[in-house]
Amino acid sequence: MILRVNRSSIKRTNVLDKKILESNYGQESFDFEVKDSKDVFVCSKYRELDLIELDQLLQTVGWSRRPIRRVKRALQFSILVVGLWKHDEKFPRLIGFARCTGDGILEATIWDVAINPVYQGLGLGKELMKYLLKRLKLTGISKVTLFADAEVVRFYKNQGWTLEPKGTKCAFWYAN
Amino acid sequence: MILRVNRSSIKRTNVLDKKILESNYGQESFDFEVKDSKDVFVCSKYRELDLIELDQLLQTVGWSRRPIRRVKRALQFSILVVGLWKHDEKFPRLIGFARCTGDGILEATIWDVAINPVYQGLGLGKELMKYLLKRLKLTGISKVTLFADAEVVRFYKNQGWTLEPKGTKCAFWYAN
Repeated sequence: MILRVNRSSIKRTNVLDKKILESNYGQESFDFEVKDSKDVFVCSKYRELDLIELDQLLQTVGWSRRPIRRVKRALQFSILVVGLWKHDEKFPRLIGFARCTGDGILEATIWDVAINPVYQGLGLGKELMKYLLKRLKLTGISKVTLFADAEVVRFYKNQGWTLEPKGTKCAFWYAN
Repeated sequence: MILRVNRSSIKRTNVLDKKILESNYGQESFDFEVKDSKDVFVCSKYRELDLIELDQLLQTVGWSRRPIRRVKRALQFSILVVGLWKHDEKFPRLIGFARCTGDGILEATIWDVAINPVYQGLGLGKELMKYLLKRLKLTGISKVTLFADAEVVRFYKNQGWTLEPKGTKCAFWYAN
């Protein structure tokens, strides 16, 4: 996944009429335009996800398919689920996604950060993460964690994440 | 924290009468004796924790204090909370702890693994982790993750955890 933008690439925010924004994407949505694109993009934590569309998005970034029934339950038990939409009055298109699990108090962990490859390199991943972190911060969470794939380590580092603080290593255990 | 035992150190299991075990620690409890100790230890996911006692335990391993009100809520929103007790018919003593957050389906992350220093080196941490992983596996979870402090990386490696699979790095973000 190409998530390489360091500086903010936002050209303009509050592009959409507030009523249209909220009726389409719910409260606390965030709409913006970026350089090098004519599209309007919207981050939303309330607009309902079509699980087929989400499955397709996750496949575009090369992730193995997971049973939709399990994904549905996993989203239900996530503490925050965020979609990034390419705005269209009739058919907004899901082009980005991230979610967060945790206890909502002391620990929050981000999973499944994805941007459709067609829209990578525009700085959308950064805006999606900023939106998500802001929402978490508003709930009082002061520390957020994630497991960064090798190819996106620099992306997170550039955004102020601390890699391997005090020699901490990530560990995975797989059931046989 | 000293969590260095590789081989199983269990001397005997099912030491306690099953009725006594369940009435004190709840169903699915696991009692055992280890080499080099005369005590009986019990892993339990149901016995209620005294938050003051938990706070004291976490302090013995040198962790910074967290407001008990927040810890209480964090435990409520954890998908699994496990205590390790030194058995006593009247006053079982909490000497180990671990908990897990996640969506309960696709992701499960272990936090706050602690063994009272007085009881470290007996293999209790290993038994606590085995108990916890077994419970997670029974719920259908096939992958478990954690952030291993530098000094316990070897402990997890010895127990079959994969460190930094495919170059994955752990990343932490702190709210200002």
